Amino acid sequence: MSFKRNVYLKILPLPEAVAKVLDALADRSAGQDDVRSLLPGREFCPAQEAVGRVLHEAVHARYSSPTCHAAAMDGFAVRAADTFAAREGEPLLLREGETCFAVNTGQPLPANCDAVIMIEHVAVDGRGGVSVEAPAFPWQHVRRIGEDIVATELLFPRNHQIRPCDVGALLSGGIWEVPVWEQPLVRIIPTGDEVLDFEQRPDPGRGQVVESNSQVLAAMARELGCRVERVKPVPDQPDRLRAALLDSLDAGAHAVIFCAGSSAGSKDYTRSILESEGEILVHGIAAMPGKPSLAAICRGRPVFGAPGYPVSSLICFEELITPVICLLAHRPLPARPEIEVELTRSLPSRLGLEEFVHLAVGRVGEKAVGIPLNRGAGNITTVTRAQAVMRIPAEAEGIAEDSLVRARLSVPPARLYDNLICVGSHDNVLDLLADELMGLPRAFRLISAHVGSMGGIAALKKGVCHMAGMHLLEEDSGDFNFAFLRKFYPEGRIVLLNLAIRRQGLIVPAGNPKGVRGVEDLKGKGLRYINRQRGAGTRILFDWHLRRAGLKPADVDGYAKEESTHMAVAVNVLTGAADCGMGIYAAARALGLDFVPLARERYDLAVPERFWEDPRILAVRDMLQTEAFKARLENLGGYETGLTGQIMHPGVRLGE
Amino acid sequence: MSFKRNVYLKILPLPEAVAKVLDALADRSAGQDDVRSLLPGREFCPAQEAVGRVLHEAVHARYSSPTCHAAAMDGFAVRAADTFAAREGEPLLLREGETCFAVNTGQPLPANCDAVIMIEHVAVDGRGGVSVEAPAFPWQHVRRIGEDIVATELLFPRNHQIRPCDVGALLSGGIWEVPVWEQPLVRIIPTGDEVLDFEQRPDPGRGQVVESNSQVLAAMARELGCRVERVKPVPDQPDRLRAALLDSLDAGAHAVIFCAGSSAGSKDYTRSILESEGEILVHGIAAMPGKPSLAAICRGRPVFGAPGYPVSSLICFEELITPVICLLAHRPLPARPEIEVELTRSLPSRLGLEEFVHLAVGRVGEKAVGIPLNRGAGNITTVTRAQAVMRIPAEAEGIAEDSLVRARLSVPPARLYDNLICVGSHDNVLDLLADELMGLPRAFRLISAHVGSMGGIAALKKGVCHMAGMHLLEEDSGDFNFAFLRKFYPEGRIVLLNLAIRRQGLIVPAGNPKGVRGVEDLKGKGLRYINRQRGAGTRILFDWHLRRAGLKPADVDGYAKEESTHMAVAVNVLTGAADCGMGIYAAARALGLDFVPLARERYDLAVPERFWEDPRILAVRDMLQTEAFKARLENLGGYETGLTGQIMHPGVRLGE
Repeated sequence: MSFKRNVYLKILPLPEAVAKVLDALADRSAGQDDVRSLLPGREFCPAQEAVGRVLHEAVHARYSSPTCHAAAMDGFAVRAADTFAAREGEPLLLREGETCFAVNTGQPLPANCDAVIMIEHVAVDGRGGVSVEAPAFPWQHVRRIGEDIVATELLFPRNHQIRPCDVGALLSGGIWEVPVWEQPLVRIIPTGDEVLDFEQRPDPGRGQVVESNSQVLAAMARELGCRVERVKPVPDQPDRLRAALLDSLDAGAHAVIFCAGSSAGSKDYTRSILESEGEILVHGIAAMPGKPSLAAICRGRPVFGAPGYPVSSLICFEELITPVICLLAHRPLPARPEIEVELTRSLPSRLGLEEFVHLAVGRVGEKAVGIPLNRGAGNITTVTRAQAVMRIPAEAEGIAEDSLVRARLSVPPARLYDNLICVGSHDNVLDLLADELMGLPRAFRLISAHVGSMGGIAALKKGVCHMAGMHLLEEDSGDFNFAFLRKFYPEGRIVLLNLAIRRQGLIVPAGNPKGVRGVEDLKGKGLRYINRQRGAGTRILFDWHLRRAGLKPADVDGYAKEESTHMAVAVNVLTGAADCGMGIYAAARALGLDFVPLARERYDLAVPERFWEDPRILAVRDMLQTEAFKARLENLGGYETGLTGQIMHPGVRLGE
Repeated sequence: MSFKRNVYLKILPLPEAVAKVLDALADRSAGQDDVRSLLPGREFCPAQEAVGRVLHEAVHARYSSPTCHAAAMDGFAVRAADTFAAREGEPLLLREGETCFAVNTGQPLPANCDAVIMIEHVAVDGRGGVSVEAPAFPWQHVRRIGEDIVATELLFPRNHQIRPCDVGALLSGGIWEVPVWEQPLVRIIPTGDEVLDFEQRPDPGRGQVVESNSQVLAAMARELGCRVERVKPVPDQPDRLRAALLDSLDAGAHAVIFCAGSSAGSKDYTRSILESEGEILVHGIAAMPGKPSLAAICRGRPVFGAPGYPVSSLICFEELITPVICLLAHRPLPARPEIEVELTRSLPSRLGLEEFVHLAVGRVGEKAVGIPLNRGAGNITTVTRAQAVMRIPAEAEGIAEDSLVRARLSVPPARLYDNLICVGSHDNVLDLLADELMGLPRAFRLISAHVGSMGGIAALKKGVCHMAGMHLLEEDSGDFNFAFLRKFYPEGRIVLLNLAIRRQGLIVPAGNPKGVRGVEDLKGKGLRYINRQRGAGTRILFDWHLRRAGLKPADVDGYAKEESTHMAVAVNVLTGAADCGMGIYAAARALGLDFVPLARERYDLAVPERFWEDPRILAVRDMLQTEAFKARLENLGGYETGLTGQIMHPGVRLGE
C-alpha cells in the first residue's frame, strides 16, 4: 500500500502570497508585447453602455457645453446696458424683437444679448412689448459657453470607473465611444469525479455533491467586472485536467480557476499539471479556511486552484484571487466598510494561521453585536447567514468573549439597524416570522442564533440580543420561563410575549415501525435515541419525561448524541441514524415522519423592556396580532395560537 | 401677446411628495387583480443567474447538504469504538476493508463508520493495514448529514436579494430555479424640439443640446435592477407626447419617465397630458435643484416628469423616483454611507426649499473636507466631480463656512484616503498629473478646486488641502510665491515644490487678425479683453504688465468681465466674445488659437510640511521626478521642466 500525496510548498502568509502573484504579473505586463497582449488590453465601448467599465486612457471633451451662451430661465433676453434706466415705479418699456427677445430655458441668446430677465419679473405692456422695473445685470440668468465643459478639457483620467452620471458628461462632451480596458475573461473549471453538474438538475445520491462553487466564484468574478466562462466538471484525470487548462489558455482566458483543484487528496493532479505547464508561485496560504489555495503563472497568465470546501473557496477568491483580478481589470480593490463589533463568545484559534470568521451582526442598543457562525469550512450557510467577516491574526491564539473586534461588513452599515437579533431556542415559527418581517414596507431581517433556551437567557443578560426564544418548563408549577428568568437573570426587566403553544413529542419514522408509544419504550427495546444539546428547552422537557417514567440517561442508547435543532433530530430519524428523538411536530411533518405527542408547551419571546418600543420589536408585536400570521402558523401543524401575541404573566396555565 | 404658462400645484416637501406616490401605488397593488397585474409580478430565474434578483417568496431547501455523513478530511474511516484501545506507544492495527477504509474529503462514510482518522495520523503497517496510536472520538472529521442545510429548511425569506454566495446555498439545496420579482420595466422618453439624439452622433450646432439625461437616468435605473427602454427624443407636440406615453403603457412599462417634461416653459405639455390620462400627484417639490419635478399615476402605474437640467434631473431621480422604483422592485432603498465633513466655504440657501449641494471630499489630516462645487443645475460636471452630496434643510437660510455637516457619500469611505486635494490656481498640468496618478499601482485621485493662487493660500491656512498650486509674481524681486506666503500665512510651514515653468501671454484668435503685440494695444484700439478673477496669479501678472505699460483698468474694455480658468478665457476668444485674454500657451494651443508671449513664470505646489510624507504627496514627488512625466509635460507646449520636482528656495530666478 502506498500513499502518494502532494506536500505543500512553504505555506505563505496571505500578503506575501498576493504580492508574489502581483509581482509576477507586473513583470510580465511590462515585458514584451507578445506577453502583454495576453492580458486585457484596450477596446471601445459606446458611452451609454460604459457604466462600470474602466477607462484605458484619459478622455478629453470634444465639444463645449453649453455650445453657446444660453438662457438659464424662461423669459426675455436683453442687453443689460439697455435696462440700466429701469427703476421701481419707473417702468422701462422693452420692445419685442428690438430690445428684448422671448427665450425659453436652454435656447441660445440672440446676438448682442448678455442677460435674461425672468418671465415672472416683466409686465406685458399694451404698447407691444414688456416693461421692467429693475435693471438686469450682465450675464444674469445666462449659462455661458463652456460653463459646464470646455472643449479639450480632461473629463476623466485613465483607470476611472464610469458611473451613471459620467455618461452625461461624456455625451455632453461629444464622446460617443470610450476607450476602456477589456473585461478580464476568466475560465472556471470545476473538477472532481464525484461532483454532479447542477446543469443536469441532479438528485444527489449518496456521496455525491452538487457542484456549486464554480457558480459562486463566477458570480463573484462578474461582480468584479469579469466575463466568465464555466466549463463542465472535469473528472480527476490528469490528461483531461491538462486539456481543460490548455484549452482555456488557447481560448484567450486572462485567468483560470480550478475549483477543488488544490486538495492534498490522492486524486489531486492540479499541482503537477501547473508545475509542468508553468510556474507555481503559491501552494498553501497561512489562512483558515482557504489554506490549500494554489497560484501559478502559466503562459503569462495567472492560474488558481481554489479549495473544494465552499467557505475555503470563497476566502481563496476574496483574499488571493480578487487582488489579481483587480490588477487585470485595473480596478481598485473592493472597499468594504469596517465596524467594531462585540463578540458574543470567545474564539479559539490556531497560532500561525490567520483565521477568517463569519459573523451575524446587528445593532443591539448602543452596540454592534457579532455572533460567530459555525466555522466549518464546508458550510456555505456560514457565509449566507453572515453580515460580516473578521480575521484573527496568525499571531493570536484566539479572541476572548466580549472583545471588541474590527469586522468587514458585507452590507451597508445602516442596514444593521434593520437586523433583529434573536438568540435562544430554535423553532420553525421563527422562519415564518423571518419571512413575514421581510414582507413589511419597512423590512426587517430576523437573525436567529440557535443556542437553546438557556443560551437565550445568557444572551439577554449580556445584552447581545433584542429577544430570546424560550420554552423552559417549570416542573413544580407547570408554568414556563418565569422561574428560569428569575433565577438566572434576576435583575432583568423582561416582557414575555407568547409566540405560540406548540406540541412536543417523539419523532419516529413514517408508520412508526417500532411502535414507539412514549419515553418508557426507550429502555431495553433496542431503540436508538438522538438527543438535543444541554441547555435546550427540549432537553429539559425530555429529562423531565425521563424522570417521570423512572428512567436514567444511562438507560437510553444515544443519550450522548446531540443535535442542536429540531430539524437535525428529524434528519437523524429520516436517515435511520436514530430510531427516535424528541422534537416539535412541525419538524416531523416537514420530513414526512411520524410523531408521538408527549406535551404542549409555551414558546415565548423574552424581550428586554428597553427594546419594547424598538421599531424591530414593534414590527414583531404588530405581526403577531395579525390573523394572517396566525393562520400561517396554524397551518404549520402542531401549533396553537390562543396566546400568540399576548403578554404573559406568571400563572398562565396551558390546561391539558 | 400672451404668455401661456403652467402654474405649479402646491409645491410639496420631498418626503410628502414621495409618500403621496408610494401610498397611491400601495393602494393599487393591494387592489383588484387586473390593476395589480400591471405592476411587477413573479417569474422564475435559474439560480446561477439570479444574483441581484429579489425573491418573490421564501425559498426552502429540497435536499440536505451533505446528503449523507461524509469524510471531512483525507484519511481512514473507522468505527470510533474500534479504536478506543489505541495508546501512544501501543499502536493498534486497523485492517483496510475490515476496520478501516481509505476515504478522501467529501466521500461518504462506509456503513457503521462514525469517525475519520487523518492520513497524517496513521502509519502504514506491513501487515496489510494502518496503525494508529490514539483513539478516534465519535464524529471526528465527519461532516454529518444536513450539517450545512437540512431539507425543507428556510434558505432565504421573501424579498431577499440574491448575492453570489447565495447561489451556492441554492444549488446545494437543490433549488435550480428561484421565484423572483420581475425586474421593473422603465420607459424613458426624452422630449424637446432642440435636443439632438446622441445616437446620431451629432455635431451640436448653436443652441442645440445633445440629449444625455435619458441615458444617465437609464443607467441609474439599471443599477436599481430595472430593465430600461429608451425611446427616441419626442418633439414638443402634444399628440406625439401623448402617443409616446400611451405606447409605453401599452408596451407594459411599469413606470414611465419623461425627461425635461416638467419645465414651466411655454412648450411644456407633459402636465396637461398626464392630467387627462391619469391623476397628477406631485407638481413641484420643495427642493433645489429638482423643483419642477412631476409625478402622476396613469393607468395604475407611476409616470414622472424629470426636469431638463442634468443635476435637477438626477436629484429628481434619486429623491423622488428611486423610492418608487425600489417599491416596484421590492428592494430596500440604496443605503449610502454618511460622514461628517468640514465645509470649505459658506453656503447661502433659500428659505423654504431643501437644497442639495454636491461636494468634492477628501481626508486632509484628521478631518474630512468638503469643497462645495458649482451649484448650477445645468452642470453635469458638478455631479461627476463630487464624492458626496449634502442637504441644506428648507428651514435654514444657509450654512456657515467651517461648519461640520453630514454628507452622503457616493464612494466608499475608505476611498477618501486616496483623494489628493489641491486648491488654488488652475493649470492644465494638474490634469496631466491627475491622469498619471490614476495610473499608479496604488492609484490616487487628484481633486483640484480652482480658486486662484490667493485662494490656495487661504485654503492652506485653513488646513483644507494637501497642496495649493500658485504662481504669484513678487514684483520687487522677480521671485515667486515666497513673499505672498510670508505675508498672508506667516505661521505656515510650507515646502514649495516646482511643478513647471510656464509661459503666459495674450490668447488671440488664430492668425492674430487684429495684430495684437502686447498689453499696450489694449487701449484705444477697440480690442475687447476678457479678464481672470481677482486673486488669480494671472490677474496679478496682467495688472503688473498693465502698470508697466502705463495703463489703467479703465483703459481696458472688458476688464470687468471675469473667467476663472485659462480654458474659459480661451473659449471667449475662440467664440469671438472677446478679442484677447491673458492665459497660458497650453490653453491657446488646445483650441487652435494664437498666442502672444509676455512672460515666463514659476508654477509651484505649496505643500504643508505635515503632509510632506503623506502617501499622496509622496506619489506626486515621485511622479515629478520621472522622465516620462517631464516628457509629457514638455509635449503640452509652453512649459519648461528645468525645475520640475525640485524644492524651491527664495532667490531662485528664472532668467529671461
